[in-house]
Amino acid sequence: MTTLIKTLATIVALTALSQDAGPAAPIYGITLPPGYRDWRLISVAHEEGTLNDLRAVLGNDVAIKAYREGKLPFPDGTIIARLAWSYVASEENDKIFGRAQSFVAGPPKNGVQFMVKDSKKYASSGGWGFAQFNDGKPADEALHKTCFPCHAPFKANDLVFTHYAP
Amino acid sequence: MTTLIKTLATIVALTALSQDAGPAAPIYGITLPPGYRDWRLISVAHEEGTLNDLRAVLGNDVAIKAYREGKLPFPDGTIIARLAWSYVASEENDKIFGRAQSFVAGPPKNGVQFMVKDSKKYASSGGWGFAQFNDGKPADEALHKTCFPCHAPFKANDLVFTHYAP
Repeated sequence: MTTLIKTLATIVALTALSQDAGPAAPIYGITLPPGYRDWRLISVAHEEGTLNDLRAVLGNDVAIKAYREGKLPFPDGTIIARLAWSYVASEENDKIFGRAQSFVAGPPKNGVQFMVKDSKKYASSGGWGFAQFNDGKPADEALHKTCFPCHAPFKANDLVFTHYAP
Repeated sequence: MTTLIKTLATIVALTALSQDAGPAAPIYGITLPPGYRDWRLISVAHEEGTLNDLRAVLGNDVAIKAYREGKLPFPDGTIIARLAWSYVASEENDKIFGRAQSFVAGPPKNGVQFMVKDSKKYASSGGWGFAQFNDGKPADEALHKTCFPCHAPFKANDLVFTHYAP
């Protein structure tokens, strides 16, 4: 009876875990990392052109430690998250400043992207797995095929675009 | 003897604490909050004009909880930090994108600013204390006189410019 209860408890726990993780992104099989919005800040950026967003790059504890110690390549277990929002002129701020100068984060845009370091699992893509989620759902395979070729030229920085902002 | 050792230990501990805190900013007496660079992200922005920076707004646990629950006014204990960096065109990113579009955080710029909520202590400035540190040192009194008048019009948002970016 105790064994049965334990087995049932394990099944329930595993089911909850797999439900939490949600569907995996194609090619690299990455699920949305839980709690990533609470991760610490690596840096910020503004992309013009078709992206036209304001973005923040966050890192899990392994990522932050490696960045602060200037450790390259990033160790296995590193996860880097790229959040982005619409690039919006802030009328309420500009009113205070007395001129148009303030651009702030509007609604989320361009999905949330992740780089996951696992040098064995992702050996064929420089040790990194890539994923993009739009409204919590993985983007399609065509999009995921573009990640590695775009990051590949950044060999000197272990394929990572973003530098740490002190 | 034990009492003497305890007293000495207390003095050493208090001395270390006051050394950690560093010099207080004028008017509001705020010292640099320890560990603020590890706080969670509220939002990001770009200011043009003379500021010309990329900025991130971080919050301590009280701030993040209040933001996520949409709680106004912010409760006592809230601390909001504004970090900023030079607005720099990224040649290395632009090379990958094939066009000039990427603006990233350069060296720190415009100091680090804090809003500290203490409705009793700072009753005469809407419940907020303000502070700016340049390279870890408090800015002068003239600068600190400009904080409250600039934030005061934002009564609808409890004097806080920045909205939470989900």
